[in-house]
Amino acid sequence: MIKSRLNSLRNLMKEYHIDFYIIPSTDYHNSEYVTKYFCAREYFSGFSGSNGTLLVSDKNACLWTDGRYFIQAKKELEGNKIMLFKMQEALVPTLLEYLAANIKEGQVIGFDGKVMSASFYKEMNEAIKAEGIMYTGGHDLVHEIWKERPQLPCNKISILPDEIAGQTIFEKTSKLREKMKKTGVGACLISKLDDIMWLYNIRGNDVPFNPVALSYTFITDKQAFLFIQKNALDLEEYQYFEKENITVLTYDSIFLFLKELKFNEKVLLDTKNCSYALFSELAGKVTIIDQRNITEELKAIKNKVEIEQLKSIYLKDSVAVTKFIYWLTQEADLSSLNEWEAGQKIDSFRKEINEFLDYSFPTICAYKENAAMMHYSAKEYGSSVLKKEGMLLVDSGGQYLGGTTDVTRTIVLGQISDSIRINYTATVEGMLQLMNAKFLKGCTGRNLDILARQPLWNLGLDYKCGTGHGIGYMLNVHEGPHTISWRYRREIEEYPLEAGMLVSDEPGVYLEGEYGIRIENILLCVENQRSNDDCFLGFEPLTFVPIDLKGILPEKMSDSNKNELNKYHNQVFLKISPYLEPSEKVWLKEVTKAL
Amino acid sequence: MIKSRLNSLRNLMKEYHIDFYIIPSTDYHNSEYVTKYFCAREYFSGFSGSNGTLLVSDKNACLWTDGRYFIQAKKELEGNKIMLFKMQEALVPTLLEYLAANIKEGQVIGFDGKVMSASFYKEMNEAIKAEGIMYTGGHDLVHEIWKERPQLPCNKISILPDEIAGQTIFEKTSKLREKMKKTGVGACLISKLDDIMWLYNIRGNDVPFNPVALSYTFITDKQAFLFIQKNALDLEEYQYFEKENITVLTYDSIFLFLKELKFNEKVLLDTKNCSYALFSELAGKVTIIDQRNITEELKAIKNKVEIEQLKSIYLKDSVAVTKFIYWLTQEADLSSLNEWEAGQKIDSFRKEINEFLDYSFPTICAYKENAAMMHYSAKEYGSSVLKKEGMLLVDSGGQYLGGTTDVTRTIVLGQISDSIRINYTATVEGMLQLMNAKFLKGCTGRNLDILARQPLWNLGLDYKCGTGHGIGYMLNVHEGPHTISWRYRREIEEYPLEAGMLVSDEPGVYLEGEYGIRIENILLCVENQRSNDDCFLGFEPLTFVPIDLKGILPEKMSDSNKNELNKYHNQVFLKISPYLEPSEKVWLKEVTKAL
Repeated sequence: MIKSRLNSLRNLMKEYHIDFYIIPSTDYHNSEYVTKYFCAREYFSGFSGSNGTLLVSDKNACLWTDGRYFIQAKKELEGNKIMLFKMQEALVPTLLEYLAANIKEGQVIGFDGKVMSASFYKEMNEAIKAEGIMYTGGHDLVHEIWKERPQLPCNKISILPDEIAGQTIFEKTSKLREKMKKTGVGACLISKLDDIMWLYNIRGNDVPFNPVALSYTFITDKQAFLFIQKNALDLEEYQYFEKENITVLTYDSIFLFLKELKFNEKVLLDTKNCSYALFSELAGKVTIIDQRNITEELKAIKNKVEIEQLKSIYLKDSVAVTKFIYWLTQEADLSSLNEWEAGQKIDSFRKEINEFLDYSFPTICAYKENAAMMHYSAKEYGSSVLKKEGMLLVDSGGQYLGGTTDVTRTIVLGQISDSIRINYTATVEGMLQLMNAKFLKGCTGRNLDILARQPLWNLGLDYKCGTGHGIGYMLNVHEGPHTISWRYRREIEEYPLEAGMLVSDEPGVYLEGEYGIRIENILLCVENQRSNDDCFLGFEPLTFVPIDLKGILPEKMSDSNKNELNKYHNQVFLKISPYLEPSEKVWLKEVTKAL
Repeated sequence: MIKSRLNSLRNLMKEYHIDFYIIPSTDYHNSEYVTKYFCAREYFSGFSGSNGTLLVSDKNACLWTDGRYFIQAKKELEGNKIMLFKMQEALVPTLLEYLAANIKEGQVIGFDGKVMSASFYKEMNEAIKAEGIMYTGGHDLVHEIWKERPQLPCNKISILPDEIAGQTIFEKTSKLREKMKKTGVGACLISKLDDIMWLYNIRGNDVPFNPVALSYTFITDKQAFLFIQKNALDLEEYQYFEKENITVLTYDSIFLFLKELKFNEKVLLDTKNCSYALFSELAGKVTIIDQRNITEELKAIKNKVEIEQLKSIYLKDSVAVTKFIYWLTQEADLSSLNEWEAGQKIDSFRKEINEFLDYSFPTICAYKENAAMMHYSAKEYGSSVLKKEGMLLVDSGGQYLGGTTDVTRTIVLGQISDSIRINYTATVEGMLQLMNAKFLKGCTGRNLDILARQPLWNLGLDYKCGTGHGIGYMLNVHEGPHTISWRYRREIEEYPLEAGMLVSDEPGVYLEGEYGIRIENILLCVENQRSNDDCFLGFEPLTFVPIDLKGILPEKMSDSNKNELNKYHNQVFLKISPYLEPSEKVWLKEVTKAL
């Protein structure tokens, strides 16, 4: 099937004189999750992970994906004659290096300009030195082949009340405009959906797991234009935007709007989060300041109301996960339970929470060697059946009225070897060391990453992904501008951690074919101490779920980490036990006992 | 005196229609140390630290310096109506921010273009937005005022034998040319003296503490030109360069050479380490690739011969320092000894070593509160007299045939409070944690810095400088391209640590008016482990000098650090004791005993 689709694509490429066709994995807004409409890369390759780019030429088809998906991609690509290129591995060429090495003078690179980020196009232009190369971004070849392609989603938006948003549109746009002035730009063209939702205190439902609506905004010192699908709004929403002085235009009209735009000032545009199609309407016409959307940094620092809501929601979410662990280890009949059913069960605990709206990403419930695939997703049929042995990794989260959650625990179901427990202990130590870090204001995630990684590096182990990501407020489970990771990339501007930011703390061990361990808490960055001219920051956990002591070899843990684990578990018991049944409470006391 | 000098300068500025005159602290080559000829900034301000820039206008004189010198600068500037600007402190404007805010349309900024780095000029041009600003780099006003200005030094160079250099000129220039090809440049213009010495296996004596000769080089794929003072060479050296196909021209002829240069390819030029005067001869004429000299990264990775020599020299140097500590704590009559004399004594122990050539920087011997000044230098007359109390910080190093050393110990002379010992312990823990780090290849110093700083940050303390610097081989005690520090600066390209690099590891505590603690080992970066696709690096200490156990509160030290300290001290005893007198040996056994 994949082969015949690739053949159709190649025929069409010939027709259009395209030598290389690139199929990225994103939608029009570089969203992490995409509706079926945008699953072209999966349609043509079979690979279902969230990140990957397919490059098709006359002879070859190649897929690039990152460390989270190496194992999964290998499986899913099997038999389809698609080569896997492991991103960031030594000696593996990047897509652009591959293209640069294989393209010949005068050849044509094609793509759908609406799903290709402008920054990638710019990089491509830089990287490919061969002469006479042409780019054609106007052809969505996918559309011509994919007959049964689903519809573009269009769901009603909702307006956040001030007591949930914590800041009015006026306050947010004022801050944005103040920063625009400082940056020296007269307007921002924003294509990043969570930024638009945040700015206008709205939420949508057009992207899986991300409560966002397909939209664009163009905002100047005085005016604001929102481009959104007509049917996403009712009269109430039209009136809301009118009251806020936001001009509503239809979603597709952005292209015409930009084509006809007369604007003398600079425009801020984040080419990493904006399509080539949008960028090319603006380029050459106004001076583009290519940098991260200002909204991204404003959004990352949660306001007081948001923090209050988050604390309450994370507590409820932690209770749900704790109840799930009790159920799994104390009540469930493991021999008749598979991964998919266990995932359904944790989902059902979340659904019982009043404020529950959706899941924040597909629940990962991975048993034994499946957990070595960082983003494994169990299927309803044929997923592994659990046993009273090994470990189950559960990474899950919810979207609630009042917050977005994300938590991972690796649950020991029975006997595990001491070598596994050594790695489990190091993972827990890494998580604790980052959680208890005290650091000077100005530090970025690159300064802190080693705290989480050192216990594993000391064992000669590494996880092939970052240690942590920012998290939205009733928005995307992954957000910037900050991150916790170690690798240096000159082209990426680092952003310091600031009080009010959320960040995940999730070191892990992934041994292909054997097992996976990940322990993840969500942390709130807080001011820790001011002394002289120094301001120190630290973290407070929002997640309060027991960490499985059966995975830990106490004699391998440092005294200070042991002490921190005991303190954390004491907090878990104090915060969670009031919401438990008596039998659950007795159990929690036991599983949070001091080492 | 300072005031009258500033007045003369201001009169001259009026004459030349200069509104702001900038006096940097460097020589023609951005050397860290400078001969008296280049001490114009000190001449006009009184501030004697190694880093600082003076800005003089009609009304104001302002000095910028870094955290190492805040206390010293405050003292030295007193009474001269020169404002101190603390670099990198919050809310303190940089020199350029200050200039940008205070300069008016049409004003003129003057400087001696030969001592102003090209990169600073470029930054200045970017930062100052006022219209009609003029720059004039042709006037060395200093020269017109400073009548008794000393001569430019001109000392004989020496040629390193292959068994000391470890690599021939041919091997080095071949590597350089290979990298030039990869970088796409046809030539390098190198103004950085230690890079030139390294490349041509020569050493000089024109800069204090840096065994380098004033010179420039222009090297293409086929040719190499060395610009050097005539009197620095004898016939033997002329013949040496001739044999190596290096064309020798006089030092000053570089300007004419560049003026008349006809060259169609790109030229690599490190504008951070090249003067405005040189840069402006080349700019507009060839395409300049502004990046770090390739020689810098080649030089940083020590070859096998260098490493062998270094190990042997560091051992001898460590013996000298250990003998000094024995003498100071067991034999000296402290009540009749001042800082300057103690410094002379450690210098004399080094002088006894056969391979000794010079000191690698001015010995720092700072008692009690003087040690809070990071780069305090005791004067012959009036320096503090020691007592059987408090601590003496000794930071010193030598230039040897076979290596450049640098080591700091803080020696406890008598009773110290527990609060001092808490900070001393944290400093030692930080030093040990970095020394024992195991990390993935690709890490830069920014990933590792927190290992040294965390124990101090946990106490709410910080040191206002980096944790570590690279070290030359019979060259500058400070060299790049790598460093260990935490602060993010977008404009600075980080360089990963690689096996064969040297780096210092020197956390500290500096409490103004109270005391200073610094413990510094020099580390050799080595490959630690290869597992799967991962290559882990680590460090081996080259320094083997006891760390004063009287400063340590064992109950405040983690078990793993205690263990590492004991291991280190065990090595110190094994390596150093064979070179000691019996009484010294007994003492060393005691001061390196396990905690």
